[in-house]
Amino acid sequence: MSVNSEFQAANQVYAESWTKGQLPLPPARNVAILTCMDARIVPARVFGLKEGDAHVIRNAGGRAPDAIRSLVISQQLLGTDTIIVAQHTDCGMLTFENKDIHAVIHKNLGADATHIDFLSFPNLEQNVRDDVSFLRNHPLIPKSINIYGYVFDVATGRLNAINEE
Amino acid sequence: MSVNSEFQAANQVYAESWTKGQLPLPPARNVAILTCMDARIVPARVFGLKEGDAHVIRNAGGRAPDAIRSLVISQQLLGTDTIIVAQHTDCGMLTFENKDIHAVIHKNLGADATHIDFLSFPNLEQNVRDDVSFLRNHPLIPKSINIYGYVFDVATGRLNAINEE
Repeated sequence: MSVNSEFQAANQVYAESWTKGQLPLPPARNVAILTCMDARIVPARVFGLKEGDAHVIRNAGGRAPDAIRSLVISQQLLGTDTIIVAQHTDCGMLTFENKDIHAVIHKNLGADATHIDFLSFPNLEQNVRDDVSFLRNHPLIPKSINIYGYVFDVATGRLNAINEE
Repeated sequence: MSVNSEFQAANQVYAESWTKGQLPLPPARNVAILTCMDARIVPARVFGLKEGDAHVIRNAGGRAPDAIRSLVISQQLLGTDTIIVAQHTDCGMLTFENKDIHAVIHKNLGADATHIDFLSFPNLEQNVRDDVSFLRNHPLIPKSINIYGYVFDVATGRLNAINEE
């Protein structure tokens, strides 16, 4: 069975147990979580989320520069006032630089992707600090927004708070 | 209690029940799910995911043009061969145009965001088709990648497949 068929079967079970009706569009807990696409992170379990609680924005690395469009919509149109930035141990983004992925793309696809910054980073905790700082100083993120940085440990399931320096 | 403190308390419970150790970095089911940041979508429940199964990329609308960086990393560095595009009913992205959010930003923040395309869309099913087509024709997405489009119904929990035209 293909993963697509497996997903359809799993969704059938989920939909049959659905009792919520249609919840409101704005997040009930007024928060947007920004985290990595990594398969080992299940935000609903990591943060204890019910359907309707929180915006969850995910990209490779959980990088803030790649999330501004979504965060502005979350805040300006849907009223969130808190951002949680949660990056994680053993992240793939710690394992390469732009020149490496540009070379892989050239080899595998015959394409030139040198115009794309893939936003990898060499130091996890410093990157959380940098992304929190990037958001605090961004002209489209109000100063009133609460922003918290974390490292999620994929070996233990634990969120470790990253203090700003 | 702030939402940040509530998340820390919820994570304490999750970490105490963690028995998995550190799972491998590449997704076990070789799939990347692209969906919206909407609070009512809990991908682990919608698709039946365990920790380690699938990359999950989320942004405002679940838009493909905003996910290329992450999808290329997912495919070229971590071996995924399938993309699920799941956009949803009652999406906030159906309710505004660029000129509207540009005006909100100018009013609320005194900032000029007219250089940002916020990627809203007027027709949900057509937008799923357009985003699937965008990926099928993108020079950085191999032709061998399986791509499936869905609309998730936030009133019923059901995924409805969108056939290409």
